[in-house]
Amino acid sequence: MSITAVPGFDAAGVACGVKPSGDPDLALVATADRQPVAAAGVFTTNIVRAAPVLVSRSHLQSGQAVAVVLNSGNANAATGERGRNDALRMCELVGGGLGCETTDVLVCSTGLIGIPLPMVPIESGVPTLVAALGADEEAGHRAADAILTTDTERKEALAVADVAGGPSFRVGGMAKGAAMLSPAMATMLAVLVTDAVAEPAALHGALEHAVRDTFNSLLVDGSRSTNDTVLLLAGGAAGTPVIGPEGHAYHALVEAVTEVCDDLALAMAADAEGATKLATVVVAGARSGEDARQAARAVAASQLVQCSLYGADPYWGRVLSELGASGAWFDPERVDIAYNGITMCRDGVAALHDERAIEEVMAGREITITCDLNQGMGRAAVRFTDLSHAYIDENMGTS
Amino acid sequence: MSITAVPGFDAAGVACGVKPSGDPDLALVATADRQPVAAAGVFTTNIVRAAPVLVSRSHLQSGQAVAVVLNSGNANAATGERGRNDALRMCELVGGGLGCETTDVLVCSTGLIGIPLPMVPIESGVPTLVAALGADEEAGHRAADAILTTDTERKEALAVADVAGGPSFRVGGMAKGAAMLSPAMATMLAVLVTDAVAEPAALHGALEHAVRDTFNSLLVDGSRSTNDTVLLLAGGAAGTPVIGPEGHAYHALVEAVTEVCDDLALAMAADAEGATKLATVVVAGARSGEDARQAARAVAASQLVQCSLYGADPYWGRVLSELGASGAWFDPERVDIAYNGITMCRDGVAALHDERAIEEVMAGREITITCDLNQGMGRAAVRFTDLSHAYIDENMGTS
Repeated sequence: MSITAVPGFDAAGVACGVKPSGDPDLALVATADRQPVAAAGVFTTNIVRAAPVLVSRSHLQSGQAVAVVLNSGNANAATGERGRNDALRMCELVGGGLGCETTDVLVCSTGLIGIPLPMVPIESGVPTLVAALGADEEAGHRAADAILTTDTERKEALAVADVAGGPSFRVGGMAKGAAMLSPAMATMLAVLVTDAVAEPAALHGALEHAVRDTFNSLLVDGSRSTNDTVLLLAGGAAGTPVIGPEGHAYHALVEAVTEVCDDLALAMAADAEGATKLATVVVAGARSGEDARQAARAVAASQLVQCSLYGADPYWGRVLSELGASGAWFDPERVDIAYNGITMCRDGVAALHDERAIEEVMAGREITITCDLNQGMGRAAVRFTDLSHAYIDENMGTS
Repeated sequence: MSITAVPGFDAAGVACGVKPSGDPDLALVATADRQPVAAAGVFTTNIVRAAPVLVSRSHLQSGQAVAVVLNSGNANAATGERGRNDALRMCELVGGGLGCETTDVLVCSTGLIGIPLPMVPIESGVPTLVAALGADEEAGHRAADAILTTDTERKEALAVADVAGGPSFRVGGMAKGAAMLSPAMATMLAVLVTDAVAEPAALHGALEHAVRDTFNSLLVDGSRSTNDTVLLLAGGAAGTPVIGPEGHAYHALVEAVTEVCDDLALAMAADAEGATKLATVVVAGARSGEDARQAARAVAASQLVQCSLYGADPYWGRVLSELGASGAWFDPERVDIAYNGITMCRDGVAALHDERAIEEVMAGREITITCDLNQGMGRAAVRFTDLSHAYIDENMGTS
């Protein structure tokens, strides 16, 4: 299974020489007939935006696209006017190769910040890339490989949606990110395609909804990169109905897009640099959903909680302290905290528990910390990882 | 030099048995005549507040105090009703020993969260502690030793203030904290005394001002503990005038209190767990002071920036990215970033620089990263440290 499992899309991946290692570093996803289709994107909220983010946002104003070109090995971020020209040139090269408008090509980059994009390998690589486009599974795998940086595994996902009274459709995707932020790099990219027929507004709505509970609920080091981009193209090969931003078909689209984003986010967490634990913090009983998200994020972002997990120490006192500093409101003496269902803190104080059972939980790889604030109905979950020596080693230097 | 260098105050420190190691763990600072004097405090903004924080805040409503009792080895946090009774009992025991009201005694605790305070050693330790009170330098050192947890060095400071037309006065202080947050612990405590004659409102104003630019501008892991407390008692031995919250004498008080807090904060940063670098990020040219503080804090809190420093890598792209994600507003293409004066980024892109000079800077222990946003007059500085293997080792477990 790869992104080409969705009818109507081709993909390719090649090594053009941006990465000194010679690993694959240039990828392309395009409609099979090279005609524009409905497209939407969500981008980093960082005000320092990489050149490809600026160019893709501008090109998406039309609500349509033919292709997405992506390079790894260089983020084309903090590269000024030159960087914007380089990103635009990538679109122009691909448009020329595919026979479509420059503005119908979207572009993503990932890698080191602050170094101009080497355009010689890109100029010579794009024709090879276009020539390599194919609808077979391997072509999709090669595209997914060519966007990786510190990732150790290719990340792909597929969902099938059934809509009562209409044809079923597929949503496929590929992503890179050795955590929400592949830390040395800039950073997470995902491209999704579907054969549904959908309006750009519906695509955008589905994408925003899906991202909130998946990629935006994954935290490794709390940084938001200059390049984060998630794109969704709807080719329409599955046939009518046209999906607008409401109704049954829209809900099926949201569900399928969320499923794909969730699978890709999980793959990122599992591949997080140096991580030995795959953790989830669930905050329940908050006054509001926003309070719950804020509190869950504070626990997940805590270096102290992350270190505790690395040391297999169920130190719930740190979790309680981070909840208290998060800005969420609650009564500290009504909080319950459990690790994989074993309650360590009840009503804000230590709870009696089975020592052997908690030791077994902490020795495992997957740990869910559930914090019940007992104030209301707000609930949120954030995936995160522990903080290990290997994380530091990975991020000590760029060379 | 110790806290007893300020005329009118006695101190003591003993080992009572809260710490299993047998190290000193109970400290007392009291007025020499056991009479109440003007007092003020600032406390953690965490809504999960330790029992001693609740009790001290309540006792400070009168604006006066005779003594501060402090224990290390146990934070008395997340201990519920029992914890509050224990904190109150500590005040009662000290009040009994000194012959003053329970409400004139303030209390601080630092150590692990979520474990009831062992009262047997406290009950037997307080009489010994009161008997050990002395005005000599060694008595002050013993008090400063008895509040340490993972600290490797005693932290004391003294400032002398001259006021035109009035007697000079002194401000002395002691603190604990192996970083803003001694991470496994809960966490930073500081007690300051002065022989100035001052109103509680003036003390509170001076303390708030001093704390903002010192303890609150120091960041190791971004966590705010359940126990953070800074107290200031004014004994008045230096004689009139009575310092109110304005005028020359007030400014002299603010300056002297800030100097002592700054010395203590620097001692904490220098003693930060596992740190190999003592870093400062200065954000200048922000739209406002608040924007500058927000941006500086985001850079200092970044695990990626911290890892870069540990690896002696001047990766300014991460600094720029964290500024952009901080919430502060600026034009990314007007930002300059320098490490110890060597400009690595100008107008948002890489700047030519002397490779050997930057290598020398990064090899050093003290590094100042200056970020000029070129938007306005807002300026802030935050001290921080790098993220090392030793930090993780220190915080993997509580046992």
